[in-house]
Amino acid sequence: MRIVLVRPRNPLNIGAAARAMANFGLDDLALVEPYTTAWETARSARAGAKVLRHARVYPGLAEALADCALAVGTTDGAARSPELPLETWPQVAAALPAGRTALIFGSEKTGLSVEDLSHCHRLARIPTLAGAPSMNLGQAVAVCAYELRRQALPGRPRARAWAEALGEAKLIGSPERERLLNAWYPLLEQLGAIQAVHRTSQTRALRAMLLRWRLTPADERRLLGLARQLRHTLAGRRSAEAGRCPPG
Amino acid sequence: MRIVLVRPRNPLNIGAAARAMANFGLDDLALVEPYTTAWETARSARAGAKVLRHARVYPGLAEALADCALAVGTTDGAARSPELPLETWPQVAAALPAGRTALIFGSEKTGLSVEDLSHCHRLARIPTLAGAPSMNLGQAVAVCAYELRRQALPGRPRARAWAEALGEAKLIGSPERERLLNAWYPLLEQLGAIQAVHRTSQTRALRAMLLRWRLTPADERRLLGLARQLRHTLAGRRSAEAGRCPPG
Repeated sequence: MRIVLVRPRNPLNIGAAARAMANFGLDDLALVEPYTTAWETARSARAGAKVLRHARVYPGLAEALADCALAVGTTDGAARSPELPLETWPQVAAALPAGRTALIFGSEKTGLSVEDLSHCHRLARIPTLAGAPSMNLGQAVAVCAYELRRQALPGRPRARAWAEALGEAKLIGSPERERLLNAWYPLLEQLGAIQAVHRTSQTRALRAMLLRWRLTPADERRLLGLARQLRHTLAGRRSAEAGRCPPG
Repeated sequence: MRIVLVRPRNPLNIGAAARAMANFGLDDLALVEPYTTAWETARSARAGAKVLRHARVYPGLAEALADCALAVGTTDGAARSPELPLETWPQVAAALPAGRTALIFGSEKTGLSVEDLSHCHRLARIPTLAGAPSMNLGQAVAVCAYELRRQALPGRPRARAWAEALGEAKLIGSPERERLLNAWYPLLEQLGAIQAVHRTSQTRALRAMLLRWRLTPADERRLLGLARQLRHTLAGRRSAEAGRCPPG
Protein backbone atom coordinates (compact mmCIF):
# COMPACT_ATOMS: atom_id res chain seq x y z
CA MET A 1 0.00 0.00 0.00
CA ARG A 2 1.33 3.39 -1.03
CA ILE A 3 0.03 6.50 0.70
CA VAL A 4 0.00 9.45 -1.74
CA LEU A 5 -0.34 13.01 -0.44
CA VAL A 6 -1.19 15.49 -3.20
CA ARG A 7 0.04 19.07 -2.63
CA PRO A 8 0.21 18.90 1.19
CA ARG A 9 0.75 22.35 2.73
CA ASN A 10 1.38 21.69 6.42
CA PRO A 11 4.58 19.98 7.61
CA LEU A 12 2.81 18.83 10.78
CA ASN A 13 0.37 16.88 8.66
CA ILE A 14 3.11 15.23 6.59
CA GLY A 15 4.87 14.25 9.82
CA ALA A 16 1.61 13.04 11.36
CA ALA A 17 0.81 10.94 8.30
CA ALA A 18 4.28 9.36 8.42
CA ARG A 19 3.93 8.61 12.12
CA ALA A 20 0.53 6.98 11.68
CA MET A 21 1.90 4.90 8.81
CA ALA A 22 4.70 3.66 11.07
CA ASN A 23 2.15 2.89 13.79
CA PHE A 24 0.21 0.63 11.47
CA GLY A 25 3.03 -0.91 9.49
CA LEU A 26 2.96 1.07 6.24
CA ASP A 27 6.22 2.38 4.78
CA ASP A 28 5.57 3.63 1.23
CA LEU A 29 4.87 7.39 1.26
CA ALA A 30 4.65 9.45 -1.96
CA LEU A 31 4.32 13.23 -2.11
CA VAL A 32 3.00 14.92 -5.23
CA GLU A 33 4.04 18.57 -5.61
CA PRO A 34 4.46 19.20 -1.87
CA TYR A 35 5.05 22.81 -0.81
CA THR A 36 8.82 22.85 -0.54
CA THR A 37 8.94 24.42 2.89
CA ALA A 38 6.41 21.94 4.22
CA TRP A 39 8.41 19.02 2.91
CA GLU A 40 11.75 20.31 4.22
CA THR A 41 10.29 20.97 7.66
CA ALA A 42 8.52 17.62 7.80
CA ARG A 43 11.73 15.77 6.99
CA SER A 44 13.20 17.00 10.25
CA ALA A 45 10.35 15.43 12.26
CA ARG A 46 11.35 12.59 14.54
CA ALA A 47 8.17 10.53 14.59
CA GLY A 48 7.84 8.39 11.50
CA ALA A 49 11.42 9.34 10.60
CA LYS A 50 12.08 6.16 8.68
CA VAL A 51 8.95 6.58 6.58
CA LEU A 52 9.89 10.19 5.77
CA ARG A 53 13.45 9.19 4.90
CA HIS A 54 12.18 6.77 2.27
CA ALA A 55 9.38 9.03 0.99
CA ARG A 56 9.59 10.02 -2.66
CA VAL A 57 8.51 13.27 -4.30
CA TYR A 58 6.79 13.18 -7.70
CA PRO A 59 6.07 16.02 -10.14
CA GLY A 60 2.55 14.76 -10.81
CA LEU A 61 -0.02 12.20 -9.75
CA ALA A 62 0.39 10.09 -12.91
CA GLU A 63 4.07 9.54 -12.05
CA ALA A 64 3.24 8.65 -8.42
CA LEU A 65 0.79 6.01 -9.65
CA ALA A 66 2.89 4.58 -12.47
CA ASP A 67 3.58 1.24 -10.77
CA CYS A 68 0.24 0.89 -8.95
CA ALA A 69 -2.40 -1.65 -9.95
CA LEU A 70 -5.21 0.25 -8.24
CA ALA A 71 -5.66 3.93 -7.36
CA VAL A 72 -8.19 4.82 -4.65
CA GLY A 73 -9.03 8.49 -4.15
CA THR A 74 -10.37 9.74 -0.82
CA THR A 75 -13.12 12.34 -1.07
CA ASP A 76 -16.19 13.52 0.76
CA GLY A 77 -18.00 13.04 -2.52
CA ALA A 78 -18.59 16.69 -3.36
CA ALA A 79 -16.43 16.87 -6.48
CA ARG A 80 -16.79 13.39 -7.85
CA SER A 81 -17.83 12.35 -11.32
CA PRO A 82 -21.26 10.70 -11.27
CA GLU A 83 -19.86 7.74 -13.18
CA LEU A 84 -17.63 6.48 -10.36
CA PRO A 85 -19.56 5.15 -7.37
CA LEU A 86 -18.61 6.43 -3.94
CA GLU A 87 -17.83 3.62 -1.49
CA THR A 88 -16.86 3.71 2.17
CA TRP A 89 -13.24 3.07 3.06
CA PRO A 90 -14.06 -0.05 5.13
CA GLN A 91 -15.78 -1.55 2.08
CA VAL A 92 -12.90 -0.74 -0.24
CA ALA A 93 -10.27 -1.89 2.27
CA ALA A 94 -12.09 -5.20 2.66
CA ALA A 95 -11.61 -6.05 -1.00
CA LEU A 96 -8.21 -4.88 -2.16
CA PRO A 97 -6.59 -6.74 -5.03
CA ALA A 98 -3.12 -8.20 -5.05
CA GLY A 99 -0.50 -5.77 -6.29
CA ARG A 100 0.34 -2.26 -5.22
CA THR A 101 -2.58 -0.04 -4.27
CA ALA A 102 -2.30 3.73 -3.93
CA LEU A 103 -4.51 5.52 -1.44
CA ILE A 104 -4.63 9.20 -2.37
CA PHE A 105 -5.32 12.19 -0.13
CA GLY A 106 -5.82 15.75 -1.36
CA SER A 107 -4.47 18.96 0.11
CA GLU A 108 -5.80 20.31 3.42
CA LYS A 109 -7.68 23.21 1.84
CA THR A 110 -9.31 21.69 -1.20
CA GLY A 111 -9.03 17.91 -1.13
CA LEU A 112 -8.52 16.14 -4.44
CA SER A 113 -9.38 18.11 -7.58
CA VAL A 114 -11.55 16.71 -10.36
CA GLU A 115 -8.30 16.42 -12.31
CA ASP A 116 -6.79 14.30 -9.50
CA LEU A 117 -9.95 12.19 -9.29
CA SER A 118 -9.69 11.35 -12.98
CA HIS A 119 -6.63 9.23 -12.08
CA CYS A 120 -8.62 7.08 -9.61
CA HIS A 121 -10.22 3.67 -10.22
CA ARG A 122 -12.30 3.89 -7.06
CA LEU A 123 -13.45 6.61 -4.69
CA ALA A 124 -13.55 6.03 -0.96
CA ARG A 125 -15.14 8.05 1.76
CA ILE A 126 -14.28 7.82 5.44
CA PRO A 127 -17.68 7.48 7.14
CA THR A 128 -17.70 10.86 8.90
CA LEU A 129 -20.93 12.61 9.83
CA ALA A 130 -22.67 14.65 7.13
CA GLY A 131 -22.52 17.72 9.38
CA ALA A 132 -18.72 17.51 9.88
CA PRO A 133 -17.35 15.58 6.91
CA SER A 134 -13.89 17.11 6.59
CA MET A 135 -11.08 15.42 8.53
CA ASN A 136 -7.64 16.66 9.43
CA LEU A 137 -5.16 15.17 6.92
CA GLY A 138 -2.97 13.42 9.49
CA GLN A 139 -6.00 11.93 11.18
CA ALA A 140 -7.51 10.78 7.92
CA VAL A 141 -4.29 8.90 7.09
CA ALA A 142 -4.27 7.44 10.62
CA VAL A 143 -7.85 6.19 10.33
CA CYS A 144 -7.26 4.62 6.92
CA ALA A 145 -4.01 2.95 8.00
CA TYR A 146 -5.74 1.67 11.15
CA GLU A 147 -8.52 0.13 9.08
CA LEU A 148 -5.99 -1.77 6.94
CA ARG A 149 -4.21 -3.08 10.01
CA ARG A 150 -7.52 -3.95 11.63
CA GLN A 151 -8.53 -6.04 8.66
CA ALA A 152 -5.18 -7.82 8.68
CA LEU A 153 -5.63 -8.92 12.31
CA PRO A 154 -6.05 -12.67 12.69
CA GLY A 155 -9.62 -13.95 12.61
CA ARG A 156 -10.90 -11.59 9.96
CA PRO A 157 -10.88 -13.30 6.62
CA ARG A 158 -10.30 -10.76 3.89
CA ALA A 159 -12.77 -10.57 1.08
CA ARG A 160 -11.21 -11.27 -2.27
CA ALA A 161 -14.07 -10.23 -4.51
CA TRP A 162 -12.26 -7.28 -6.05
CA ALA A 163 -9.07 -9.26 -6.45
CA GLU A 164 -10.93 -12.01 -8.23
CA ALA A 165 -12.72 -9.52 -10.43
CA LEU A 166 -9.46 -7.87 -11.39
CA GLY A 167 -7.80 -11.24 -11.75
CA GLU A 168 -9.86 -11.97 -14.84
CA ALA A 169 -7.65 -9.90 -17.02
CA LYS A 170 -4.42 -8.04 -16.81
CA LEU A 171 -5.18 -4.35 -17.19
CA ILE A 172 -2.98 -1.56 -18.44
CA GLY A 173 -1.55 0.93 -15.95
CA SER A 174 -1.13 4.65 -15.72
CA PRO A 175 1.86 5.02 -18.14
CA GLU A 176 0.03 3.12 -20.90
CA ARG A 177 -3.08 5.22 -20.36
CA GLU A 178 -1.11 8.44 -20.67
CA ARG A 179 0.50 7.09 -23.86
CA LEU A 180 -2.96 6.44 -25.31
CA LEU A 181 -4.10 9.94 -24.37
CA ASN A 182 -1.03 11.44 -26.03
CA ALA A 183 -1.63 9.44 -29.20
CA TRP A 184 -5.33 10.26 -29.44
CA TYR A 185 -5.52 13.83 -28.23
CA PRO A 186 -4.16 15.55 -31.37
CA LEU A 187 -6.31 13.33 -33.60
CA LEU A 188 -9.49 14.12 -31.70
CA GLU A 189 -8.60 17.79 -31.84
CA GLN A 190 -8.01 17.57 -35.58
CA LEU A 191 -11.38 15.84 -36.03
CA GLY A 192 -13.08 18.59 -34.05
CA ALA A 193 -14.17 16.13 -31.33
CA ILE A 194 -12.46 18.26 -28.71
CA GLN A 195 -11.54 21.92 -28.68
CA ALA A 196 -8.21 23.40 -27.69
CA VAL A 197 -9.91 25.83 -25.29
CA HIS A 198 -11.32 22.91 -23.31
CA ARG A 199 -8.10 20.94 -23.46
CA THR A 200 -7.68 20.50 -19.68
CA SER A 201 -11.21 19.41 -18.82
CA GLN A 202 -11.51 17.23 -21.91
CA THR A 203 -8.20 15.44 -21.29
CA ARG A 204 -9.46 14.78 -17.78
CA ALA A 205 -12.76 13.38 -19.04
CA LEU A 206 -10.91 11.19 -21.55
CA ARG A 207 -8.56 9.85 -18.87
CA ALA A 208 -11.42 9.03 -16.53
CA MET A 209 -13.21 7.26 -19.36
CA LEU A 210 -10.17 5.16 -20.33
CA LEU A 211 -9.69 4.26 -16.69
CA ARG A 212 -13.30 3.18 -16.27
CA TRP A 213 -13.10 1.05 -19.39
CA ARG A 214 -10.60 -1.34 -17.78
CA LEU A 215 -8.41 -1.62 -20.88
CA THR A 216 -6.23 -4.66 -21.44
CA PRO A 217 -2.87 -4.66 -23.23
CA ALA A 218 -4.66 -5.99 -26.32
CA ASP A 219 -7.09 -3.06 -26.18
CA GLU A 220 -4.14 -0.71 -25.91
CA ARG A 221 -2.53 -2.23 -29.03
CA ARG A 222 -5.79 -1.91 -30.96
CA LEU A 223 -6.33 1.70 -29.94
CA LEU A 224 -2.73 2.68 -30.67
CA GLY A 225 -2.92 0.92 -34.03
CA LEU A 226 -6.14 2.69 -34.86
CA ALA A 227 -4.61 6.05 -33.91
CA ARG A 228 -1.68 5.31 -36.23
CA GLN A 229 -3.96 4.49 -39.14
CA LEU A 230 -6.10 7.52 -38.50
CA ARG A 231 -3.04 9.77 -38.32
CA HIS A 232 -1.86 8.35 -41.61
CA THR A 233 -5.26 8.88 -43.22
CA LEU A 234 -5.62 12.43 -41.94
CA ALA A 235 -2.10 13.26 -43.14
CA GLY A 236 -3.04 11.87 -46.56
CA ARG A 237 -6.10 14.05 -46.56
CA ARG A 238 -4.06 17.13 -45.79
CA SER A 239 -1.68 16.37 -48.61
CA ALA A 240 -4.66 15.70 -50.88
CA GLU A 241 -6.09 19.09 -50.04
CA ALA A 242 -2.91 21.11 -49.76
CA GLY A 243 -0.34 19.31 -51.87
CA ARG A 244 -2.00 17.69 -54.80
CA CYS A 245 -4.70 20.24 -55.45
CA PRO A 246 -3.29 23.50 -56.73
CA PRO A 247 -4.87 26.49 -55.00
CA GLY A 248 -7.62 28.44 -56.69
CA MET B 1 -19.35 7.98 25.01
CA ARG B 2 -17.18 10.46 26.85
CA ILE B 3 -13.63 11.12 25.69
CA VAL B 4 -11.35 11.92 28.65
CA LEU B 5 -7.92 13.51 28.07
CA VAL B 6 -5.70 13.32 31.14
CA ARG B 7 -3.11 16.14 31.49
CA PRO B 8 -2.88 17.00 27.78
CA ARG B 9 0.04 19.36 27.06
CA ASN B 10 -0.39 20.35 23.43
CA PRO B 11 -3.28 22.60 22.35
CA LEU B 12 -3.04 21.23 18.80
CA ASN B 13 -3.81 17.77 20.16
CA ILE B 14 -6.81 18.96 22.16
CA GLY B 15 -8.13 20.71 19.06
CA ALA B 16 -7.42 17.65 16.91
CA ALA B 17 -9.23 15.39 19.36
CA ALA B 18 -12.27 17.70 19.32
CA ARG B 19 -12.29 17.81 15.54
CA ALA B 20 -12.12 14.02 15.22
CA MET B 21 -14.95 13.68 17.75
CA ALA B 22 -17.08 16.01 15.65
CA ASN B 23 -16.18 14.01 12.53
CA PHE B 24 -17.49 10.81 14.07
CA GLY B 25 -20.44 12.14 16.03
CA LEU B 26 -19.08 12.30 19.58
CA ASP B 27 -19.69 15.43 21.66
CA ASP B 28 -18.71 14.71 25.28
CA LEU B 29 -15.11 15.81 25.94
CA ALA B 30 -13.61 15.90 29.45
CA LEU B 31 -10.20 17.31 30.33
CA VAL B 32 -8.46 16.26 33.52
CA GLU B 33 -5.87 18.74 34.78
CA PRO B 34 -5.04 20.20 31.37
CA TYR B 35 -2.10 22.56 31.16
CA THR B 36 -3.86 25.91 31.37
CA THR B 37 -2.15 27.47 28.38
CA ALA B 38 -2.89 24.42 26.25
CA TRP B 39 -6.54 24.53 27.12
CA GLU B 40 -6.92 28.27 26.53
CA THR B 41 -5.19 28.01 23.15
CA ALA B 42 -7.21 24.97 22.11
CA ARG B 43 -10.48 26.74 22.89
CA SER B 44 -9.73 29.23 20.15
CA ALA B 45 -9.48 26.46 17.54
CA ARG B 46 -12.18 26.54 14.89
CA ALA B 47 -12.40 22.85 14.01
CA GLY B 48 -14.48 20.97 16.55
CA ALA B 49 -15.50 24.32 18.06
CA LYS B 50 -18.80 23.07 19.37
CA VAL B 51 -17.17 20.11 21.11
CA LEU B 52 -14.60 22.41 22.74
CA ARG B 53 -17.31 24.87 23.82
CA HIS B 54 -19.09 22.12 25.73
CA ALA B 55 -15.96 20.46 27.09
CA ARG B 56 -15.61 20.35 30.88
CA VAL B 57 -12.49 20.53 32.98
CA TYR B 58 -12.11 18.28 36.04
CA PRO B 59 -9.58 18.42 38.88
CA GLY B 60 -9.04 14.65 38.82
CA LEU B 61 -9.88 11.47 36.94
CA ALA B 62 -12.30 10.24 39.60
CA GLU B 63 -14.47 13.34 39.15
CA ALA B 64 -14.41 13.00 35.36
CA LEU B 65 -15.64 9.41 35.68
CA ALA B 66 -18.26 10.01 38.38
CA ASP B 67 -21.30 9.47 36.17
CA CYS B 68 -19.81 6.76 33.93
CA ALA B 69 -20.86 3.12 34.03
CA LEU B 70 -17.64 1.91 32.43
CA ALA B 71 -14.12 3.36 32.24
CA VAL B 72 -11.80 2.12 29.52
CA GLY B 73 -8.14 3.16 29.66
CA THR B 74 -6.01 3.26 26.52
CA THR B 75 -2.46 2.02 26.89
CA ASP B 76 0.27 0.32 24.94
CA GLY B 77 0.40 -2.15 27.81
CA ALA B 78 3.74 -1.13 29.25
CA ALA B 79 2.47 0.27 32.54
CA ARG B 80 -0.55 -1.88 33.15
CA SER B 81 -1.42 -3.86 36.21
CA PRO B 82 -1.14 -7.57 35.51
CA GLU B 83 -4.61 -8.11 36.93
CA LEU B 84 -6.45 -6.36 34.13
CA PRO B 85 -6.35 -8.11 30.80
CA LEU B 86 -5.27 -6.03 27.83
CA GLU B 87 -7.79 -6.13 25.00
CA THR B 88 -7.73 -4.52 21.59
CA TRP B 89 -9.94 -1.48 21.06
CA PRO B 90 -11.98 -3.15 18.28
CA GLN B 91 -12.79 -5.99 20.72
CA VAL B 92 -13.79 -3.61 23.51
CA ALA B 93 -15.77 -1.33 21.20
CA ALA B 94 -17.71 -4.32 19.86
CA ALA B 95 -19.02 -5.16 23.33
CA LEU B 96 -19.83 -1.91 25.14
CA PRO B 97 -22.57 -2.04 27.76
CA ALA B 98 -25.52 0.34 27.96
CA GLY B 99 -24.84 3.51 29.94
CA ARG B 100 -22.13 6.11 29.66
CA THR B 101 -18.66 4.82 28.84
CA ALA B 102 -15.49 6.87 29.30
CA LEU B 103 -12.56 6.28 27.00
CA ILE B 104 -9.42 7.65 28.62
CA PHE B 105 -6.20 8.86 26.96
CA GLY B 106 -3.02 9.78 28.85
CA SER B 107 -0.71 12.72 28.25
CA GLU B 108 1.50 12.88 25.17
CA LYS B 109 4.71 12.23 27.07
CA THR B 110 3.83 9.50 29.52
CA GLY B 111 0.45 8.02 28.69
CA LEU B 112 -1.77 6.95 31.60
CA SER B 113 -0.02 6.41 34.94
CA VAL B 114 -0.58 3.29 37.06
CA GLU B 115 -2.65 5.57 39.25
CA ASP B 116 -4.84 6.55 36.29
CA LEU B 117 -5.11 2.92 35.19
CA SER B 118 -6.45 2.00 38.61
CA HIS B 119 -9.63 3.93 37.67
CA CYS B 120 -10.24 1.75 34.65
CA HIS B 121 -12.53 -1.25 34.35
CA ARG B 122 -10.92 -2.36 31.16
CA LEU B 123 -7.71 -1.66 29.26
CA ALA B 124 -7.72 -1.23 25.51
CA ARG B 125 -4.85 -1.13 23.09
CA ILE B 126 -5.01 0.30 19.59
CA PRO B 127 -3.45 -2.45 17.44
CA THR B 128 -0.28 -0.58 16.46
CA LEU B 129 2.92 -2.40 15.51
CA ALA B 130 5.17 -3.53 18.36
CA GLY B 131 8.04 -1.55 16.82
CA ALA B 132 6.10 1.75 16.76
CA PRO B 133 3.39 1.47 19.41
CA SER B 134 3.00 5.09 20.45
CA MET B 135 0.41 7.15 18.58
CA ASN B 136 -0.06 10.88 18.38
CA LEU B 137 -2.86 11.83 20.81
CA GLY B 138 -5.12 13.48 18.24
CA GLN B 139 -4.72 10.53 15.89
CA ALA B 140 -5.41 8.01 18.66
CA VAL B 141 -8.70 9.77 19.46
CA ALA B 142 -9.54 9.86 15.75
CA VAL B 143 -8.92 6.13 15.34
CA CYS B 144 -11.01 5.23 18.41
CA ALA B 145 -13.89 7.51 17.41
CA TYR B 146 -13.77 6.07 13.89
CA GLU B 147 -14.02 2.53 15.27
CA LEU B 148 -17.16 3.44 17.23
CA ARG B 149 -18.76 5.02 14.21
CA ARG B 150 -17.72 2.09 12.05
CA GLN B 151 -19.44 -0.36 14.37
CA ALA B 152 -22.57 1.77 14.37
CA LEU B 153 -22.84 1.70 10.57
CA PRO B 154 -25.78 -0.33 9.33
CA GLY B 155 -24.74 -3.91 8.77
CA ARG B 156 -21.16 -5.05 8.78
CA PRO B 157 -19.04 -3.36 6.19
CA ARG B 158 -18.93 -5.97 3.53
CA ALA B 159 -16.90 -6.32 0.43
CA ARG B 160 -18.77 -5.48 -2.69
CA ALA B 161 -17.81 -6.94 -6.00
CA TRP B 162 -16.62 -4.28 -8.38
CA ALA B 163 -19.43 -5.12 -10.75
CA GLU B 164 -21.97 -4.53 -8.02
CA ALA B 165 -20.34 -1.25 -7.04
CA LEU B 166 -20.32 -0.10 -10.65
CA GLY B 167 -23.91 -1.24 -10.97
CA GLU B 168 -24.84 2.12 -9.48
CA ALA B 169 -23.73 3.71 -12.71
CA LYS B 170 -26.16 3.00 -15.52
CA LEU B 171 -24.58 1.03 -18.39
CA ILE B 172 -25.73 0.83 -21.98
CA GLY B 173 -27.41 -2.34 -23.20
CA SER B 174 -27.21 -4.52 -26.23
CA PRO B 175 -29.18 -2.26 -28.67
CA GLU B 176 -26.93 0.71 -27.94
CA ARG B 177 -23.85 -1.48 -28.38
CA GLU B 178 -25.06 -2.68 -31.76
CA ARG B 179 -25.74 0.91 -32.82
CA LEU B 180 -22.16 1.77 -31.91
CA LEU B 181 -20.84 -1.19 -33.89
CA ASN B 182 -22.88 -0.18 -36.93
CA ALA B 183 -21.59 3.38 -36.73
CA TRP B 184 -17.96 2.40 -36.31
CA TYR B 185 -17.59 -0.70 -38.47
CA PRO B 186 -17.51 1.05 -41.89
CA LEU B 187 -15.15 3.70 -40.55
CA LEU B 188 -12.72 1.14 -39.18
CA GLU B 189 -12.87 -0.71 -42.48
CA GLN B 190 -12.20 2.49 -44.40
CA LEU B 191 -9.22 3.23 -42.14
CA GLY B 192 -7.85 -0.26 -42.75
CA ALA B 193 -8.17 -1.21 -39.09
CA ILE B 194 -10.29 -4.23 -40.02
CA GLN B 195 -10.59 -6.24 -43.19
CA ALA B 196 -13.80 -7.17 -44.95
CA VAL B 197 -12.74 -10.86 -45.16
CA HIS B 198 -12.63 -11.07 -41.38
CA ARG B 199 -15.83 -9.14 -40.90
CA THR B 200 -17.63 -11.71 -38.74
CA SER B 201 -14.84 -12.51 -36.33
CA GLN B 202 -13.75 -8.90 -36.04
CA THR B 203 -17.25 -7.62 -35.34
CA ARG B 204 -17.47 -10.24 -32.59
CA ALA B 205 -14.16 -9.13 -31.11
CA LEU B 206 -15.26 -5.49 -31.23
CA ARG B 207 -18.54 -6.29 -29.52
CA ALA B 208 -16.82 -8.26 -26.78
CA MET B 209 -14.48 -5.35 -26.25
CA LEU B 210 -17.31 -2.80 -26.00
CA LEU B 211 -19.06 -5.08 -23.54
CA ARG B 212 -15.95 -5.43 -21.39
CA TRP B 213 -15.54 -1.67 -21.34
CA ARG B 214 -18.84 -1.21 -19.48
CA LEU B 215 -19.91 1.87 -21.42
CA THR B 216 -22.28 4.43 -19.95
CA PRO B 217 -24.82 6.44 -21.95
CA ALA B 218 -22.38 9.39 -21.86
CA ASP B 219 -19.67 7.17 -23.37
CA GLU B 220 -22.10 6.10 -26.08
CA ARG B 221 -22.86 9.74 -26.98
CA ARG B 222 -19.14 10.55 -27.12
CA LEU B 223 -18.33 7.58 -29.34
CA LEU B 224 -21.27 8.20 -31.69
CA GLY B 225 -20.29 11.87 -31.95
CA LEU B 226 -16.72 10.92 -32.74
CA ALA B 227 -17.88 8.49 -35.44
CA ARG B 228 -19.99 11.25 -37.00
CA GLN B 229 -17.05 13.65 -37.09
CA LEU B 230 -14.74 11.00 -38.47
CA ARG B 231 -17.27 10.09 -41.19
CA HIS B 232 -17.53 13.74 -42.12
CA THR B 233 -13.74 14.15 -42.26
CA LEU B 234 -13.23 11.00 -44.31
CA ALA B 235 -15.98 12.06 -46.73
CA GLY B 236 -14.21 15.40 -47.11
CA ARG B 237 -11.01 13.55 -47.87
CA ARG B 238 -12.67 11.47 -50.56
CA SER B 239 -14.10 14.55 -52.22
CA ALA B 240 -10.72 16.24 -51.94
CA GLU B 241 -9.07 13.30 -53.68
CA ALA B 242 -11.79 12.39 -56.12
CA GLY B 243 -13.72 15.56 -56.70
CA ARG B 244 -11.50 18.52 -56.57
CA CYS B 245 -8.32 16.99 -57.94
CA PRO B 246 -8.68 16.08 -61.58
CA PRO B 247 -7.39 12.55 -62.27
CA GLY B 248 -3.96 11.99 -63.71
